[in-house]
Amino acid sequence: MQLITLTTDFGVQDWFVGTMKGVILSLAPRATIVDLTHEIPPGDIGCGAFALAVSCRFFPKGTVHLAVVDPGVGSARGAIAVQTADYFFVGPDNGVLSWALAREKIKFICRLTNEKFFLRPVSQTFHGRDIFAPAAAHLCRGVSPARLGPAENDFVRRPWPQPVVRRDGLLGEVVYIDHFGNAITNLEISQLEPADAGEIIWDGGRRRCPVKAFYQAVPAGQAVAVRGSSGFLEIAVNGGSAAQRFNLNIGRRVRLRWKRAAEGPSAAPTAGQAVSRGD
Amino acid sequence: MQLITLTTDFGVQDWFVGTMKGVILSLAPRATIVDLTHEIPPGDIGCGAFALAVSCRFFPKGTVHLAVVDPGVGSARGAIAVQTADYFFVGPDNGVLSWALAREKIKFICRLTNEKFFLRPVSQTFHGRDIFAPAAAHLCRGVSPARLGPAENDFVRRPWPQPVVRRDGLLGEVVYIDHFGNAITNLEISQLEPADAGEIIWDGGRRRCPVKAFYQAVPAGQAVAVRGSSGFLEIAVNGGSAAQRFNLNIGRRVRLRWKRAAEGPSAAPTAGQAVSRGD
Amino acid sequence: MQLITLTTDFGVQDWFVGTMKGVILSLAPRATIVDLTHEIPPGDIGCGAFALAVSCRFFPKGTVHLAVVDPGVGSARGAIAVQTADYFFVGPDNGVLSWALAREKIKFICRLTNEKFFLRPVSQTFHGRDIFAPAAAHLCRGVSPARLGPAENDFVRRPWPQPVVRRDGLLGEVVYIDHFGNAITNLEISQLEPADAGEIIWDGGRRRCPVKAFYQAVPAGQAVAVRGSSGFLEIAVNGGSAAQRFNLNIGRRVRLRWKRAAEGPSAAPTAGQAVSRGD
Repeated sequence: MQLITLTTDFGVQDWFVGTMKGVILSLAPRATIVDLTHEIPPGDIGCGAFALAVSCRFFPKGTVHLAVVDPGVGSARGAIAVQTADYFFVGPDNGVLSWALAREKIKFICRLTNEKFFLRPVSQTFHGRDIFAPAAAHLCRGVSPARLGPAENDFVRRPWPQPVVRRDGLLGEVVYIDHFGNAITNLEISQLEPADAGEIIWDGGRRRCPVKAFYQAVPAGQAVAVRGSSGFLEIAVNGGSAAQRFNLNIGRRVRLRWKRAAEGPSAAPTAGQAVSRGD
Repeated sequence: MQLITLTTDFGVQDWFVGTMKGVILSLAPRATIVDLTHEIPPGDIGCGAFALAVSCRFFPKGTVHLAVVDPGVGSARGAIAVQTADYFFVGPDNGVLSWALAREKIKFICRLTNEKFFLRPVSQTFHGRDIFAPAAAHLCRGVSPARLGPAENDFVRRPWPQPVVRRDGLLGEVVYIDHFGNAITNLEISQLEPADAGEIIWDGGRRRCPVKAFYQAVPAGQAVAVRGSSGFLEIAVNGGSAAQRFNLNIGRRVRLRWKRAAEGPSAAPTAGQAVSRGD
Repeated sequence: MQLITLTTDFGVQDWFVGTMKGVILSLAPRATIVDLTHEIPPGDIGCGAFALAVSCRFFPKGTVHLAVVDPGVGSARGAIAVQTADYFFVGPDNGVLSWALAREKIKFICRLTNEKFFLRPVSQTFHGRDIFAPAAAHLCRGVSPARLGPAENDFVRRPWPQPVVRRDGLLGEVVYIDHFGNAITNLEISQLEPADAGEIIWDGGRRRCPVKAFYQAVPAGQAVAVRGSSGFLEIAVNGGSAAQRFNLNIGRRVRLRWKRAAEGPSAAPTAGQAVSRGD
């Protein structure tokens, strides 16, 4: 199966995504194209990187992931294709691929410079259509990445906001606001039981909500933190928008406080430990 | 042909729909996936039920209709698959499937409990990806619904706002506002001739407009009621938005008044009768 | 390969586009359907015509381009299919196809009147689903356009706002505002070098910006005119929205002023001429 995903900030108002698909299907008629999203805020490389990182592994092996959030189109920024153990990634070399690649086993990196594989003439403002879509289509058809341009040793890595571990919890921040107004944080907890985590605190301690297993574990209209479907803690309002209610935005600092055992801080659990105190 | 439709409130801003498609195509690589809509207002089961009910029969036999408007995700609400004479329906057992199912011949109902057909691990917040998408993909591939979980006798039925028949017309309400600002009512009239129906009245009689065959049957900017493409009377403004102009919203009461013959109310026609008075 | 593109003003909020796809796939199960856009402003034939004209040639030969921006649905306006040397075009005969067709070699025009190829019953408000989608599906499957209805000699041509050539530049107007807030003009310059064109002026001379090769050729936040990916000059703001910043909208007059050689207006270049003065 030939599968290509698209992640862009082009929106769906115009014909931009449609023409990329026309270019892809002209070169790879049997390709199936899946839109991850085209509503990344214009030029927001971090949002694009996050969307791709949390989604790419839900696709079958061999999928070509194409991400174009490209405020520097036409300037000197590079264009790359990266082959990993399971996938191909194609996009501008500005960090938009890097959070996804941080979780993959890199096999080969190349710079997209072979004009033979470009759509001609190449515009200065829409490399998504003229350079990236053709590259993705050729990879999808089985063209070796080595033919698309010279090998590279590395790519631009966008720093990930690593949470700070404190004795009584974690310091983190909001990294994404979703359609429901849920504020997704950088606090990734692989095994979260209600007993593990006490509460999320923000706005310098003025706001807080309990960590629960699902949205409706609190009454309608109340705030709750849950382990979201992408693996990160998120602040939600049952039946409402946490982002609107609390005016949350990307970069806002949040603090996770573990549930403390009765005997005091020395018994503070670390991530993954179960605490025997009831909920 | 393997066809799956998607109806959700996930929006297209994020990667949620994309990852559902990745899960489906991982299990059923030859599936064709059609978006019915992902812009159901968050948690609005009625809008989702209406969208599915008026759309599902435009698809070929064997299509799997997957609808996920699921405010109770993670709580005790059930998950079901329903086989009808022509289709499969998959979704939460909260009524979102029920208006479509009311028009279908039910063959088999099962509860989606067989974890063998789940994506593992199952999140508590995104059953669309982890339970419903895999179920739809397996049904699409030909897996018998009986393998997905135990048979059930019934499902949650959402009450449909039945219009009230009056001697001189019908009492109904707005059930959906579409992209053009047309206010779709629950007044379903299978054979509507301009001569049959006089006018639609709302806001306690302060607002009214004639029933016509199409939007441009009234001058630009004027209100008109037409039999919409889904079979229901809708209030529109030729070249404008009726919802904006008249501040119409779901639940607003409307009244259809039949055209009266000259001799008085005793000659008031009933639905489907032609009246010989000209337009 | 069987490929159909869709360009409509139906939005993606409702089920309208989904049901069109259901109808198409019922008739042409192997068709691949690509959304060009469904966000044409309601009833805006000019925007639809522009979107189709600048996109259609990025698709493989044989593609069926279906465009439904149809404020006159149900009234007397015609419905047509046009076969060109490379494509089929299907839509209402209101000009929405005409800017694309102006660039194509016309082979055959027919009026869609053969009810045998309609979805029955035909609604008065949704010919996209009932007449146009079936026509596109049949053409895609190989049905001859001559079977869809009688041959026609011509179609409705929407006037294109032709720029006015002045000795020192071009007078034009904004024809489209895109998702990024770029204001696309009707000034089409096939070979634009930075040295050719001096600046774009609007608001009666109170606003101006230089013509450059790409957005980031000016500092962030500054206005720049570039040759956009569709071949037309567009006014942009590097990292921002020109439409918002300058309150630009469709129809706004703009003036392109060529770079003048030092010796005065007699040396003013014409389009396509290179000027030896540096940038």
